Amino acid sequence: MSWMDGIPLWDHHCHALIDPSLAGDMELFAYALTEAPRSYPLKDIQQTVTYWQALSIAAQELGTRCDAKEIEMSLRQTDFGSYSRSLFHKAGYERLLIDTGFTPQGGWPLSELESVLAIPIMKILRLETTAQELLYQFADVRDWILAVKDRVKHARSQGYVGMKSIIAYRSGLEVYPVHSEDAQAAFAEMKKQGQTRLTDPRLLNYLLWELAPVFIEEALPLQFHTGLGDPDTNLYKGNPLLLRDFLETFIPQGLQVTLLHTYPYHREAGFLASVYPNVYFDVSLALPLAASGAKRIVAEALELAPATRVLFASDSHTRPESFYLSATLWKQGLEAYCDRITQDHHILPEVAERWMNLIAWENCRRVYQL
Amino acid sequence: MSWMDGIPLWDHHCHALIDPSLAGDMELFAYALTEAPRSYPLKDIQQTVTYWQALSIAAQELGTRCDAKEIEMSLRQTDFGSYSRSLFHKAGYERLLIDTGFTPQGGWPLSELESVLAIPIMKILRLETTAQELLYQFADVRDWILAVKDRVKHARSQGYVGMKSIIAYRSGLEVYPVHSEDAQAAFAEMKKQGQTRLTDPRLLNYLLWELAPVFIEEALPLQFHTGLGDPDTNLYKGNPLLLRDFLETFIPQGLQVTLLHTYPYHREAGFLASVYPNVYFDVSLALPLAASGAKRIVAEALELAPATRVLFASDSHTRPESFYLSATLWKQGLEAYCDRITQDHHILPEVAERWMNLIAWENCRRVYQL
Amino acid sequence: MSWMDGIPLWDHHCHALIDPSLAGDMELFAYALTEAPRSYPLKDIQQTVTYWQALSIAAQELGTRCDAKEIEMSLRQTDFGSYSRSLFHKAGYERLLIDTGFTPQGGWPLSELESVLAIPIMKILRLETTAQELLYQFADVRDWILAVKDRVKHARSQGYVGMKSIIAYRSGLEVYPVHSEDAQAAFAEMKKQGQTRLTDPRLLNYLLWELAPVFIEEALPLQFHTGLGDPDTNLYKGNPLLLRDFLETFIPQGLQVTLLHTYPYHREAGFLASVYPNVYFDVSLALPLAASGAKRIVAEALELAPATRVLFASDSHTRPESFYLSATLWKQGLEAYCDRITQDHHILPEVAERWMNLIAWENCRRVYQL
Repeated sequence: MSWMDGIPLWDHHCHALIDPSLAGDMELFAYALTEAPRSYPLKDIQQTVTYWQALSIAAQELGTRCDAKEIEMSLRQTDFGSYSRSLFHKAGYERLLIDTGFTPQGGWPLSELESVLAIPIMKILRLETTAQELLYQFADVRDWILAVKDRVKHARSQGYVGMKSIIAYRSGLEVYPVHSEDAQAAFAEMKKQGQTRLTDPRLLNYLLWELAPVFIEEALPLQFHTGLGDPDTNLYKGNPLLLRDFLETFIPQGLQVTLLHTYPYHREAGFLASVYPNVYFDVSLALPLAASGAKRIVAEALELAPATRVLFASDSHTRPESFYLSATLWKQGLEAYCDRITQDHHILPEVAERWMNLIAWENCRRVYQL
Repeated sequence: MSWMDGIPLWDHHCHALIDPSLAGDMELFAYALTEAPRSYPLKDIQQTVTYWQALSIAAQELGTRCDAKEIEMSLRQTDFGSYSRSLFHKAGYERLLIDTGFTPQGGWPLSELESVLAIPIMKILRLETTAQELLYQFADVRDWILAVKDRVKHARSQGYVGMKSIIAYRSGLEVYPVHSEDAQAAFAEMKKQGQTRLTDPRLLNYLLWELAPVFIEEALPLQFHTGLGDPDTNLYKGNPLLLRDFLETFIPQGLQVTLLHTYPYHREAGFLASVYPNVYFDVSLALPLAASGAKRIVAEALELAPATRVLFASDSHTRPESFYLSATLWKQGLEAYCDRITQDHHILPEVAERWMNLIAWENCRRVYQL
Repeated sequence: MSWMDGIPLWDHHCHALIDPSLAGDMELFAYALTEAPRSYPLKDIQQTVTYWQALSIAAQELGTRCDAKEIEMSLRQTDFGSYSRSLFHKAGYERLLIDTGFTPQGGWPLSELESVLAIPIMKILRLETTAQELLYQFADVRDWILAVKDRVKHARSQGYVGMKSIIAYRSGLEVYPVHSEDAQAAFAEMKKQGQTRLTDPRLLNYLLWELAPVFIEEALPLQFHTGLGDPDTNLYKGNPLLLRDFLETFIPQGLQVTLLHTYPYHREAGFLASVYPNVYFDVSLALPLAASGAKRIVAEALELAPATRVLFASDSHTRPESFYLSATLWKQGLEAYCDRITQDHHILPEVAERWMNLIAWENCRRVYQL
């Protein structure tokens, strides 16, 4: 490592850590390093590079052998706060944007976490879950939308610096505008059936299209879950190219869009970022989950897009080892990239260094106006 | 090579060899190394890495120069059985699961082949061709299905250890349940038109959905053709992500699914294997056909999935050089992978070694209960 | 470099250069190195490997530092013709097939360009723009088609050696045959609405299906825009696998098809080329735009297809640095490929050398009958 030495990381998409009382739960350790549900065999997760590299991170920090039992024993005797802080600081984290829509089992309150880690934390607000909570307070779909808009208008004052849509998980990324009559019909139907989970494609798309102008007004960037995730997601419908109509509509109006994860569609995401203003992306979750391929994935992600359009994210949660792992893999990928572009493509070292700063933290600061 | 030294290969998807009388047919040699039909120019096939690497394997074994004429002459004077046995054993083959749905021109009877190669052979039964043979014996679609079920129930006792579906070739992988009335209508229609080839999507999907519970009962893993194949396949519809509804339905009931070939969707296959229990995959056919990229393809395939979910398959047929080629490329890919994960990702050598055994033969033994 | 030494490049898909009066326009320089429109921020384009590597090419040729200001000053004092000729010749260009459907701002007349560069130029005719120009001369769709056919029949005598379809940009690659009544209805509709741009899918598909037999008669290869392009293209619909029905129909009749760009579907293009006779492809535009990944992209493109099926194209325009860049990246990719196949796959050096000649120029000569 040398290109990334001393360059801090601003993580624009991650989640909270577990409470210290769970620090020695090695089953939780394993399941924090996969998108597989609890029905997926633990012994399979334990045969991944991700799991073993995370173990080795813990072992190195704790000074034990790379052995789950030894690590567990040591973790139970270690102050989890100091341990976590050490790993975050060694990895170079300087700012966290936490998606509060998913909180790990026994999540550590953010205010405490911020002080334990000694790293400033900002929040990202999930559109669909926020809207879902308000569903049964209104009889008319328009009133519901107004209430969601109101929430979004107060987001910044409550510590939120961006929005996130998980429509990919609910009805896929082929989004489209919906007439308010159709939305009203879906709204009534949903209530008649007593559903509490917002899954109707008409409502999801209506919500997205109605709220986008408010995100623009409020200068809140909109994150989209795209690409891989837990099996709830239909990866076939998670291709960010499907967002085209949405981008064609709202990008010219000033919306800023960040595409999360993107793998295995990171080349497609790079294409979008290379031809649309204000489109950004990361490979976040693919870093820890596809650990052995991270170098290649980072390289592929950087093929088309300018250095001004790529963001760092760990998409980590639960365990500090995962944050450390994502950061390490990201930096290794960028080191190899810088070596290659300065040697084979005659990029000046000062230009490469500038790009590393953009990608590591400056793009994040600019996009989220931090 | 060193990681793979002494580790045997169990091939969970391959086909038979040609009869020795065709050993010197160099046109057949060339067409055995492609998925192109006979209408595809021979001179084009002769300008591939696959063809030339297979020639060089033959030349080395025969002690000739790497020249098609010399190789042909030598092959005509060589005992094809000994020649084949030598290549299979040098390549490390210890068990073959042969898909009997495709038999090469002049196929060598399996019982003879087994004794010539001195390698145990098990069989895989093709669902669609089995069902197709029974079509005209029944007037009612339910009776037909019962007969297919009966065949499947006797599969194990006839030496079959798994099933294979080629629905990707017939109507694509976006599979769905079909009402029996619709199936009955399709059944009648097909017979009225005198069709003998089972291509109606309603019948294909009905068959698959009706039979899956029997595969579970009989503990027969179900292989799916996915990804590349001959031009009969619509590769656009060969994306294994399209199997989602099927997987969501039958995986929780205990079905074991193996996705074959998968290229260029091997990353997608890795995703499925990483979040669904009992989903396995290989890159088989991509090894010999994309020879110059095999190392990268193996690496991409191993990005997401645990080592417990990847299987070796050669998808070879006709010629022993193809089996040798697949095995060599597979092992080279894994060698590079092991070097990388032990060096860059701190995986313990004993863990990497364990994974190589899983991938090379233990997963196959477990999945197919051998 | 050594494998490619002395091997000339025939570029089967590129565009014209700008007029010398614009040689020092550095904004035009930047926008010539992207598919982004003018609404895309200049400062983002200036943070790409493509832009900086092009600057470094200019700096080296001009003898300046790699600095946009210095380069601009030097360019304004340099003879643009000699400068361009020098870059083209150093890059090894020996023949250009220019798509006249897109001409850069202030395009240099081809006859002049040919003499300035001292490189023979042939032309490619765009189907849709040619047909569009004739739309309002006819009241009946059949007469319009006849007029287009007539144009195509005179194409060779006017210096055209191939056709190009941009249907990917208009309605996507999932092409299909259209009944003449439907085409007539669309034709009438379009005129009633006073549209001048040919965008109706029925007309576009009708045109393609009607003209394909003429391309066969005239032995004119048909280029398809596929894969990445400017944001006008819906990349989701730019997958060449979608052409399957068209290929199944016209390839057996003798049509020659070349798939342009193909990224990120270059593996899919390689599959098509590996199973259908007379299907060719390139990665053209991906070379300069995905500069840092060119080596990997070239390697991926060469995985499945025979060496007889891959063509070189720069898809460059406007600036000579772009032509130089594409050529350099292409040759670097092929050098690495040759090293690998001769070392790891036992390909004889004379075979690798033969393949490099095929890929660099002989395939182009044969396909376009030059």
